[in-house]
Amino acid sequence: MRCKKCVLESTERLQDSCGVVATIGKNAAEKTFMAMVGEQNRGQDSCGIITFDTETKLFYPKKGYGLVTEVFKKPGDYADLKGEYAVGHVRYPTVGSTGEPQPVETNHPMQGIVLAHNGNIANLAQLKAELRKHEFGFKTEIDAEVLLGKFVQELMRTYHDFEAITSLMNDVDGSYSVVMINGKGKLYAFRDPLGIKPLVYGEKNGTFMVASESSALQTAGINLLGDIPPGAVLVADKEGYNIKQLIEAQLNTCVFEHIYFANPQSVIDGIEVGSFRKRLGKILGARIKIEADVVMPVPFSSNPTAQGFAKSSEIPYKEGLIKNQYVGRIFIKKNDEEREMGVRLKYNIAKSVVDKKRVVVVDDSIVRGTTMKYIVKLLYEAGAKEVHVIIAMPMIIGPCFYGVNITSYTELVAHQKTAEQINHEIIQADSLHFSDISDLYEAGRTKDFCVSCLTDEYLTKEGQRLSQILKENGGKMERRPWDE
Amino acid sequence: MRCKKCVLESTERLQDSCGVVATIGKNAAEKTFMAMVGEQNRGQDSCGIITFDTETKLFYPKKGYGLVTEVFKKPGDYADLKGEYAVGHVRYPTVGSTGEPQPVETNHPMQGIVLAHNGNIANLAQLKAELRKHEFGFKTEIDAEVLLGKFVQELMRTYHDFEAITSLMNDVDGSYSVVMINGKGKLYAFRDPLGIKPLVYGEKNGTFMVASESSALQTAGINLLGDIPPGAVLVADKEGYNIKQLIEAQLNTCVFEHIYFANPQSVIDGIEVGSFRKRLGKILGARIKIEADVVMPVPFSSNPTAQGFAKSSEIPYKEGLIKNQYVGRIFIKKNDEEREMGVRLKYNIAKSVVDKKRVVVVDDSIVRGTTMKYIVKLLYEAGAKEVHVIIAMPMIIGPCFYGVNITSYTELVAHQKTAEQINHEIIQADSLHFSDISDLYEAGRTKDFCVSCLTDEYLTKEGQRLSQILKENGGKMERRPWDE
Amino acid sequence: MRCKKCVLESTERLQDSCGVVATIGKNAAEKTFMAMVGEQNRGQDSCGIITFDTETKLFYPKKGYGLVTEVFKKPGDYADLKGEYAVGHVRYPTVGSTGEPQPVETNHPMQGIVLAHNGNIANLAQLKAELRKHEFGFKTEIDAEVLLGKFVQELMRTYHDFEAITSLMNDVDGSYSVVMINGKGKLYAFRDPLGIKPLVYGEKNGTFMVASESSALQTAGINLLGDIPPGAVLVADKEGYNIKQLIEAQLNTCVFEHIYFANPQSVIDGIEVGSFRKRLGKILGARIKIEADVVMPVPFSSNPTAQGFAKSSEIPYKEGLIKNQYVGRIFIKKNDEEREMGVRLKYNIAKSVVDKKRVVVVDDSIVRGTTMKYIVKLLYEAGAKEVHVIIAMPMIIGPCFYGVNITSYTELVAHQKTAEQINHEIIQADSLHFSDISDLYEAGRTKDFCVSCLTDEYLTKEGQRLSQILKENGGKMERRPWDE
Amino acid sequence: MRCKKCVLESTERLQDSCGVVATIGKNAAEKTFMAMVGEQNRGQDSCGIITFDTETKLFYPKKGYGLVTEVFKKPGDYADLKGEYAVGHVRYPTVGSTGEPQPVETNHPMQGIVLAHNGNIANLAQLKAELRKHEFGFKTEIDAEVLLGKFVQELMRTYHDFEAITSLMNDVDGSYSVVMINGKGKLYAFRDPLGIKPLVYGEKNGTFMVASESSALQTAGINLLGDIPPGAVLVADKEGYNIKQLIEAQLNTCVFEHIYFANPQSVIDGIEVGSFRKRLGKILGARIKIEADVVMPVPFSSNPTAQGFAKSSEIPYKEGLIKNQYVGRIFIKKNDEEREMGVRLKYNIAKSVVDKKRVVVVDDSIVRGTTMKYIVKLLYEAGAKEVHVIIAMPMIIGPCFYGVNITSYTELVAHQKTAEQINHEIIQADSLHFSDISDLYEAGRTKDFCVSCLTDEYLTKEGQRLSQILKENGGKMERRPWDE
Repeated sequence: MRCKKCVLESTERLQDSCGVVATIGKNAAEKTFMAMVGEQNRGQDSCGIITFDTETKLFYPKKGYGLVTEVFKKPGDYADLKGEYAVGHVRYPTVGSTGEPQPVETNHPMQGIVLAHNGNIANLAQLKAELRKHEFGFKTEIDAEVLLGKFVQELMRTYHDFEAITSLMNDVDGSYSVVMINGKGKLYAFRDPLGIKPLVYGEKNGTFMVASESSALQTAGINLLGDIPPGAVLVADKEGYNIKQLIEAQLNTCVFEHIYFANPQSVIDGIEVGSFRKRLGKILGARIKIEADVVMPVPFSSNPTAQGFAKSSEIPYKEGLIKNQYVGRIFIKKNDEEREMGVRLKYNIAKSVVDKKRVVVVDDSIVRGTTMKYIVKLLYEAGAKEVHVIIAMPMIIGPCFYGVNITSYTELVAHQKTAEQINHEIIQADSLHFSDISDLYEAGRTKDFCVSCLTDEYLTKEGQRLSQILKENGGKMERRPWDE
Repeated sequence: MRCKKCVLESTERLQDSCGVVATIGKNAAEKTFMAMVGEQNRGQDSCGIITFDTETKLFYPKKGYGLVTEVFKKPGDYADLKGEYAVGHVRYPTVGSTGEPQPVETNHPMQGIVLAHNGNIANLAQLKAELRKHEFGFKTEIDAEVLLGKFVQELMRTYHDFEAITSLMNDVDGSYSVVMINGKGKLYAFRDPLGIKPLVYGEKNGTFMVASESSALQTAGINLLGDIPPGAVLVADKEGYNIKQLIEAQLNTCVFEHIYFANPQSVIDGIEVGSFRKRLGKILGARIKIEADVVMPVPFSSNPTAQGFAKSSEIPYKEGLIKNQYVGRIFIKKNDEEREMGVRLKYNIAKSVVDKKRVVVVDDSIVRGTTMKYIVKLLYEAGAKEVHVIIAMPMIIGPCFYGVNITSYTELVAHQKTAEQINHEIIQADSLHFSDISDLYEAGRTKDFCVSCLTDEYLTKEGQRLSQILKENGGKMERRPWDE
Repeated sequence: MRCKKCVLESTERLQDSCGVVATIGKNAAEKTFMAMVGEQNRGQDSCGIITFDTETKLFYPKKGYGLVTEVFKKPGDYADLKGEYAVGHVRYPTVGSTGEPQPVETNHPMQGIVLAHNGNIANLAQLKAELRKHEFGFKTEIDAEVLLGKFVQELMRTYHDFEAITSLMNDVDGSYSVVMINGKGKLYAFRDPLGIKPLVYGEKNGTFMVASESSALQTAGINLLGDIPPGAVLVADKEGYNIKQLIEAQLNTCVFEHIYFANPQSVIDGIEVGSFRKRLGKILGARIKIEADVVMPVPFSSNPTAQGFAKSSEIPYKEGLIKNQYVGRIFIKKNDEEREMGVRLKYNIAKSVVDKKRVVVVDDSIVRGTTMKYIVKLLYEAGAKEVHVIIAMPMIIGPCFYGVNITSYTELVAHQKTAEQINHEIIQADSLHFSDISDLYEAGRTKDFCVSCLTDEYLTKEGQRLSQILKENGGKMERRPWDE
Repeated sequence: MRCKKCVLESTERLQDSCGVVATIGKNAAEKTFMAMVGEQNRGQDSCGIITFDTETKLFYPKKGYGLVTEVFKKPGDYADLKGEYAVGHVRYPTVGSTGEPQPVETNHPMQGIVLAHNGNIANLAQLKAELRKHEFGFKTEIDAEVLLGKFVQELMRTYHDFEAITSLMNDVDGSYSVVMINGKGKLYAFRDPLGIKPLVYGEKNGTFMVASESSALQTAGINLLGDIPPGAVLVADKEGYNIKQLIEAQLNTCVFEHIYFANPQSVIDGIEVGSFRKRLGKILGARIKIEADVVMPVPFSSNPTAQGFAKSSEIPYKEGLIKNQYVGRIFIKKNDEEREMGVRLKYNIAKSVVDKKRVVVVDDSIVRGTTMKYIVKLLYEAGAKEVHVIIAMPMIIGPCFYGVNITSYTELVAHQKTAEQINHEIIQADSLHFSDISDLYEAGRTKDFCVSCLTDEYLTKEGQRLSQILKENGGKMERRPWDE
């Protein structure tokens, strides 16, 4: 049996839910920059661009911590990134993280390879150990480097790019939406056979682009062509592109993407995110009967859900919680006092909307419950007669090994609790309601979702094994250095 | 007659529309920090706090460029600001500005005075010249230093605080909402006799606070007590506070505050800003008849206006323009191409809301028209069949000498033009509609507004004189260093 | 009797031994910058320049931490400091210091005054208390602000500049070499009636300059005209300058200036520093008889002393200790291990000069003895057969209240010890020798020196009182915040 | 025939004369840091350390611009660099350089390799082209990456470390002193078969170290064991070390090392640098007859030379030029005015030493002559009756392709000129004297020097070819981006 330490390593970097971009075309760095801004919602911790110039045959990197518009403050900041090939990456913010920004790179073979990745590798530790045996070493703890190493190893074994990616897909357990460019002028983009994380491509006026979300293409002015299918690879160069299905696959889009991560205007695997949310709100408004005077979202991810809820429940929609657009990243909250201060800085209440009213407040999900508790408190303080909480996501009862930063059973407020218990012990509203998985299927008009965290049943072998070990350890891993 | 150069000086720093805070109580720096975040909408260019500690008898300053949460990144960043007295300031962003952050200060008399100000002084040049004759010199170009110098001069003449402020009110032409603390443990707050810029006060649990907006009090957890009347002074110390009317006065709240600057949940001179906007939207929706499928705001200042418009026009309200929350401050735009890029980075379109639809888009105001032009372009690109533009503010036909950054006739898109001409030449929508001044009066249920920029008739002598000079100079001032 | 806490305050900021510059002429900022580089030896902790421009009538400040060439890295960094008047300051490095850079300033009277100071005020606490009574407050803990406040207070009492300075000289106990400019285009420079700290002036091609050391004038290309006499003021404007003796005075140049602080090529009160050191070395070489193979300095302050010693002793002079020019400021040393590391990083040994040799090593002074101990250790490690230590300064037996950072009896290695004891307990060389006060008088060809720290007899009332209190407190003050 | 563009590329990065360090042992980062400080004279532009930890199996990098003590300001700054293996590098400052700091690295094979290098590769362009054919790409323009790529390529061909290095030595034309560590716990150090650049090794208390200069070992407290012979490799791990001669070789130490680059206390290929300089000074003092009152060095590289000259000429040695230790790196000089300002900031004159005296001033070398011209001017200004200039280096008549930043004939002041012409046209002293090559051989007691730049005859094929092309192009290359 494996020791706790090994579990630890094998699940490290769970939190790397991020956004990727790869571009071929004139001003590749500028287009990549724009696309990264357009999917900045996927990660605000750090970012980076590496370009390749076919003339100088050099790679040009620029990485940094913060928003894309903080790292690239003015045109000159990406103007140095010469060339017609670029890979970009935005990284998810996680408290205490020491992780470096992507993309990662190697100088050989293929005259150098640059890679960026969104997802989570469940069998990371095993892969790392094997790669070391094959003389590959690691410069960082970034999981993308393992994907790079694996690709390099298989390439040097097979001497064939598609075979190498196929081998990778057979051996890597987890979610990964990957983009790569190399020093020979090729762009590769591929997606794990479960299709958990999104990956789309598009084109306009000679610029070809792959990105995590269609909002990225839109901001860069690129027309969406489609989703890269699970288990497939797209290869492109200056002449054109081609998609090839490498192994049998089945779509399981992460349901958190539709409810929380993604931009409302993005289209993921054929579903427009905002419309999904509105339909889900309508379903909930029709099902959950509440006598109330006003429905309001916790802005902004829940705006369409609340609007849907208002429509079917016929309770007026109003903006009662005003989000402060200028708060920026606030210092790390170490205790309840600082967490409450954080919520106060982030949200103001429109007193006239709330005072003496029965309020329905709609949010996307509850993981640990610390924010919703203070929002409810603020609403009562502002004079609300009643507060009813609607949560778009069903109750989360299991950790995620495929890209969402939930790493134990014990951190979950819904772990072995009912909605009523959660409300009574933490949220302290007049009522608390969650959606069901069937609501999600109805809103999505499909069942092609990964709902592992809602069912505690995992799609992959490694996921099943890790959840078992966690349960044996009392639902919890040892503290890891990047946890707070 | 005055030369153009003199006009220049007398109107310098027009753009200083800002936010002020002054606090007495425990953790004065922290409370001030929170309040500044709560009125960050009033200025994102720079900020500062100066505290006074009655024990060490020292003043502690910290100023910097950027958001409040950028300058004060973590608790330690204001923890050094010791004492139970604090003055804070947030400054309006202006392209190319070289201006330093407030508050300003002097070391004598009163054992030191710290002052911060929101507004604009029309007769700045004359006041500066007089102060120099009285041996006062200037360390910066901040207009607040002129108010400080004037107060010091009058204090050394009269040996009486209220007399000094009364003299100041008689001699300073323009708008000014001022807060001051001194080394003898007093807080002063006063507002010009026209009451153009807001100034409110409140208290909770032994903390007393003055701020520009009630949203600042709310974020700091302070209960709003009321507005400081025009022409009055509030004086406070650890024992309590007192308000005294110094000269005869008449309220003329800047109408731009209600439509654009202020937080929707703020209450200014008795009017809740968000409700004002919603009522204005309803009035416009009832008056302006458009056949359309959807009404959407340019987020976020126009959300309530658009909701009001939707209500009375019975056209469905939808969020079709999605504002990217993570853009941050983008590099200065020097040409049309960069301006278009700026709009693309800032807004995405929910295609399903817009495609093949007749769209009504609602925005707060049009000054130069450069943003709305590209929003309309984006909407057509996304498939809109028709685009109709509703502007909450009437047509702006004159500059402002009282705190809004409009410094000439020629920069105004509405200067000597009709709405139709503006639409035809610049906006290029299917139709363009503005509100009337009477709509504002109806929505505000009062006429106590400054509408100088809408009528080209100015409330003060200096305003009348400056507008005259501008007209003689062809409606335009020479380029100033901080203009782009 | 006074409490310990009061002693504390009255001696705070003892360590401010610094350098000042004031300039009238074209490119005043550039000339001031050059002069500050030329006396950078007087302080490397922080620096600042404030200029005054008679055209804009504004003051332009720039201050920062580090070397002059770190704060002003390129021409543009002082190019913004417009005007024909400038005051500059370099500040002494002290571990743990929180003190801000000078110059200090006020906005009235005289249309603003900028002041910088080198020295130490013994009766600081009393002066501060009195100034507060006269409505003056303090923005910093910089002692220069007290001189500024005192000058302002006396000016507002007497309405006469020279009378104000005379009053200041009568009331301030300690050392102060002061430069000031004001918003009316005057430069003032004055020196305490004991003449403890240097202050020189010069001119070339229409540029007039006052500085702490003549090396500053030389670097700026200004010809030295002379020293400002003790108790006198120099006043200058664009037309010319004038010196006026204000009160009776007697020269007592700080002997530490000649032995350690000052540049060897500087001329202070008529004595060239390098020649003084060489003569002192000759005297010591003639008096102290040692059988040795080589004489070497601890570079660079002791180079001339060691050369003098070599000449009269007829032992060959060689450079055996090589100072690493690129060490920069090294992190604060908290323990013996880090102190030893500091010495190892700073000095290398030329093995061929030292190996199997009897070595005489010459240093300027021993205060705490921590550096010399490790130098001796390094020499033995490199193979020295014998190590003899010569110290140019006599044994320091008392603290300094006039500008040298020695604040207690207990920190002094020579406190109640003989040279033999010091060598035995700490230095551990074969022998250790100090100069006598009579050697200093002979080398200086004058007795006009302050030797208070060598005699424990103080020149001023406050010095006498403070030394008495220190003795009553066991020779030691309570730890102060800036001590490590 | 080759085009000019190719010459350009093949000689790019000539200026990389630097210092390397590699360490095995506890606290490898700290020891490497200390050693880098001890050879900081070899490069102040940028620096970096990469460590390898056998426990985490990760590489830890930290690089930056500036001095070692600027990039690593406090112990914590290298404390994160875990592991018992480290490679460090300091880089030569070159105006306008865009080059990144070393070391360079690859993640495979050998589980990752880190490499740093001092020297210059003459056939860089050819090697790069070949490596690209073998699928190796470049992330930077650093020449060390070419050495790394070459080693990797040969390793993957031969599967044997020594064979790979032997192949590298056969194919790389130029100078290179290289250190490497890998992820399998080995340290390699090797030196080109001409032995142009130094490379020494040593040990103490279980710490093994390779460095460019013995001064680095001394500062780190490591005992010097010897020089790595030309054409040999040293391989070490935690168990011990071994040296193996790989190809036939002949020592040709760069004579610039002895005269200018190296620390005086360093021992390079058996010669103590300071003693070499002193002997050279004596030889010159005996040969060149000048009637003068004083001999002084341009500090500090020429101090021993001047002391030797004084000894044999019997003219007194005095320190008349005082170097300002606090100037730091001064802004780039773009014209004569700024160059003169630079010299004024850097040097002061002890007037008493120079005034009315006949002065001999000794400097190490003259390449472009811009500094010496202003030093002579300063001496005359200070009253010197006569100024005679002695240059330790013979006249430089050819460029260097092996590590000194001289890249053309035309930049050389001595190109097709006599000493008299140089003095007349540029230096303008009373006389100007250079050493001869025979003086160097006599002072060094050997002829094992590279004197290519003094004879215009080059040691390698590529050097001969490049000098020929330069001559055909009129002695000059096209301007390159990093030239000023």
